[in-house]
Amino acid sequence: MIHKFIQYLHISYLTKQRGVFVELKKEKGKFIKLHPAQILVIGFAVLIFLGTLLLMLPISTYEEGKGLHFVDALFEATSAVCVTGLAVVDTGTTFTIFGQLVMLFLVQIGGWGFMTIGIFMFIILGKKIGLKERLLLQDSLNLFTLSGVVKLVSRIIFITLIVEITGALILAIRWSFEMAWTKALYYGFFHSISAFNNAGFGLEPDNLSKWVGDPTVNLAITSLFIIGGIGFTVILDVWQKKSLRKLSLHSKVALLMTLILNVVGTIIILISEFHNAATIGNLSWNDKFWASYFQGVVPRTAGFNTIDIGHMTLSSQVFTMALMFIGASSGSTGGGIKVTTFAIIIFAFWTVLTNRSDVNIFKRRISWNLVNKSLSIGVSAIIFIFTIFFLLTYTEDMPMNKLLFETISAFGTVGLSTGITGDLSPYGKLLITLMMFIGRLGPLTMAFALMSKRHKARLRYAEEKILIG
Amino acid sequence: MIHKFIQYLHISYLTKQRGVFVELKKEKGKFIKLHPAQILVIGFAVLIFLGTLLLMLPISTYEEGKGLHFVDALFEATSAVCVTGLAVVDTGTTFTIFGQLVMLFLVQIGGWGFMTIGIFMFIILGKKIGLKERLLLQDSLNLFTLSGVVKLVSRIIFITLIVEITGALILAIRWSFEMAWTKALYYGFFHSISAFNNAGFGLEPDNLSKWVGDPTVNLAITSLFIIGGIGFTVILDVWQKKSLRKLSLHSKVALLMTLILNVVGTIIILISEFHNAATIGNLSWNDKFWASYFQGVVPRTAGFNTIDIGHMTLSSQVFTMALMFIGASSGSTGGGIKVTTFAIIIFAFWTVLTNRSDVNIFKRRISWNLVNKSLSIGVSAIIFIFTIFFLLTYTEDMPMNKLLFETISAFGTVGLSTGITGDLSPYGKLLITLMMFIGRLGPLTMAFALMSKRHKARLRYAEEKILIG
Ligand SMILES: [K+]
Ligand SMILES: [K+]
Repeated sequence: MIHKFIQYLHISYLTKQRGVFVELKKEKGKFIKLHPAQILVIGFAVLIFLGTLLLMLPISTYEEGKGLHFVDALFEATSAVCVTGLAVVDTGTTFTIFGQLVMLFLVQIGGWGFMTIGIFMFIILGKKIGLKERLLLQDSLNLFTLSGVVKLVSRIIFITLIVEITGALILAIRWSFEMAWTKALYYGFFHSISAFNNAGFGLEPDNLSKWVGDPTVNLAITSLFIIGGIGFTVILDVWQKKSLRKLSLHSKVALLMTLILNVVGTIIILISEFHNAATIGNLSWNDKFWASYFQGVVPRTAGFNTIDIGHMTLSSQVFTMALMFIGASSGSTGGGIKVTTFAIIIFAFWTVLTNRSDVNIFKRRISWNLVNKSLSIGVSAIIFIFTIFFLLTYTEDMPMNKLLFETISAFGTVGLSTGITGDLSPYGKLLITLMMFIGRLGPLTMAFALMSKRHKARLRYAEEKILIG
Repeated sequence: MIHKFIQYLHISYLTKQRGVFVELKKEKGKFIKLHPAQILVIGFAVLIFLGTLLLMLPISTYEEGKGLHFVDALFEATSAVCVTGLAVVDTGTTFTIFGQLVMLFLVQIGGWGFMTIGIFMFIILGKKIGLKERLLLQDSLNLFTLSGVVKLVSRIIFITLIVEITGALILAIRWSFEMAWTKALYYGFFHSISAFNNAGFGLEPDNLSKWVGDPTVNLAITSLFIIGGIGFTVILDVWQKKSLRKLSLHSKVALLMTLILNVVGTIIILISEFHNAATIGNLSWNDKFWASYFQGVVPRTAGFNTIDIGHMTLSSQVFTMALMFIGASSGSTGGGIKVTTFAIIIFAFWTVLTNRSDVNIFKRRISWNLVNKSLSIGVSAIIFIFTIFFLLTYTEDMPMNKLLFETISAFGTVGLSTGITGDLSPYGKLLITLMMFIGRLGPLTMAFALMSKRHKARLRYAEEKILIG
């Protein structure tokens, strides 16, 4: 089935006629036209469904005789496939090794899926992307033949494996000092895969809090999810150009925004938590720094934690929500509206305030069309988040900051939580499940919808203005 | 000073050269070019400053010998001029009749100011507004002569007075049954002016809670602020067309959205508060309905209350925040991003989701340019609100829902509060003061900036795409 799916998957340029479509050839020579967004949604829904069934198997969980409830299994599978990392049960103590490997498998497939799709999107929409990026991708990957597609996917898998194995070994060596080497190795691989794919699942009940001031764990984990979250296109660009100046505008903006947000995040957390005894108030200067760095960097969008999110100050929680909303880079394992979208919105805002005619970034002009699309993504994200959050206020009896934090964490596929995930009602769990799915696929499909050529209406109405603002 | 200002105020069409400017003639024949937005900001700042001084006078407050502190007086003056209605002191017991009249005066000047400015904006930008609306306004008001301006302003003042006096008399008659007629008359006028200008100041400590189930008070007050909040252009349009079909698109959208949001607001409040004993849970069916109607309609953006906002369910509070954010119509006494802006955003969102090419409302096409502007207004509002709210989390030790509610209420110049206004720290009060000022002037000036022709840059950079979403 999947074999046939891949075999007959042809990417064709129908952009000129009616948007971007992928033709799926059926046996009798008939074609079903599927929008890539539709393929995406169906594919991930199927994967989540399979994962749910696997996690419900008795061998997946420790409590003998009965597996996970459907709602919990659906939640965990969605969280894994969407590389979110929110958990209604404790991963380390609830799941057997089999269950944990199922989770890891779902995370890896999910992560690859999103990286690959990001690239495909980049290429399918090549005509609408700058010549520079297009040539870059066309040169390195011949995407218009099946071998080209296989080559791209293998390259993504290869780079992923290299990075994950390196990370896993570093972590395993570090952990071998305090646990048996088999356990250290397993821990290393689990956390490395979880980190690179920006999933944020851990094996300890308090995630990574044990190693709050440990430089190796801090640096290894953050490096893994920052590389995973920067996106394959940027990795490829840096790999080939080997010079910051020659990078594409996309890579420059993604790298700079990642740097700025990480530095600002660290500073804000350090300032906001400095005297908070429930988090870093009583730690040494060294541990304070590492904890702030980790918690300032992690919201986009890895979801690990080394301090108790529920006890952070409201300021930290609110700023973390903003960072989770912004998220990682396009075509990466991270979620959110994406750093590039955010950058364009901020630059556009500044351009309007200063009454300039062009949005310029790095001496390059951003079309108003792209600005419009970025604004649309931002606004639609807010509409989705508001809807789910508003419904949660009916199903749950919890304070606003905790509910909104959980919703934005699910939307941004971050996985940080103030600790309420397991206490949610079944309706609440389903709402958060839906939010993870929308949050992971929504912006992507939204981007597809925005980037594909619009159907020209046969009948156009006369234009009329409305007074706004 | 003000006389000379008005005498030499010429509105000139400089749109073709460099945006919209108002020429302010100085004595020696020199001209200072001021952007209308600049005049707006300066004018209101001066009015607020004068109001602050007046409210600090010992005769303004009951406590003898000392007037209001500067921060409190500034807060109250800003709240009055921006017709917000948030109060750090109890209006009825803190201010003397003189102080109350100062407040009422500031409210009325503020209200007139915003209605007049709304119209001016409509006309100054006439060239960019549909021919239909332009002819409508040009026919009825010759705005290009001083007499035309005077005629417009007098008409606004005339209609305002008629509506306010009618409302005041109805309320006075109703209240004369339970208080001395002089007090009833004063109460009638105070609440009528406060309602028509969408200010929301009341004279009782619990605002209008005494009359929670009273049909006369409910209908009179809500009618006053709905008429005030629909905008002068719509009133004029309805007045002259006398037929719903012939109305301009702007009027149709403003009226329909107002109706929809009022009905939805009422239903949501009724559902969310039905069993809440702290608000309407123990009231009769009749009182339940009136309270829900009042509290569902009032967030856009009158700011009165008949039930305790602080004891409403989180669902009601969150939905009220959304309504406060949306606000009233353009060119009215109400604030927020405006119903028309919101309508365009929602229609655009739907258009993108369904992959259509045009945003159509009432068989009229909305230009993507206008959509872009609406999205910009929405996003910039969110940026402003987030900034002030985030700073408040540092200065105040209060739960998120209360702080965010206060911030959005200030932004939308609504004046509803969960009851924390008086308990804010001086920094908190100053932040809310700033939010009221930005909330009142921001969207207007933003609209100016967005609508005026952009300076063409001499040097344009090459365009480059970025991957978003
Ligand atoms: K995550
Ligand atoms: K108000």
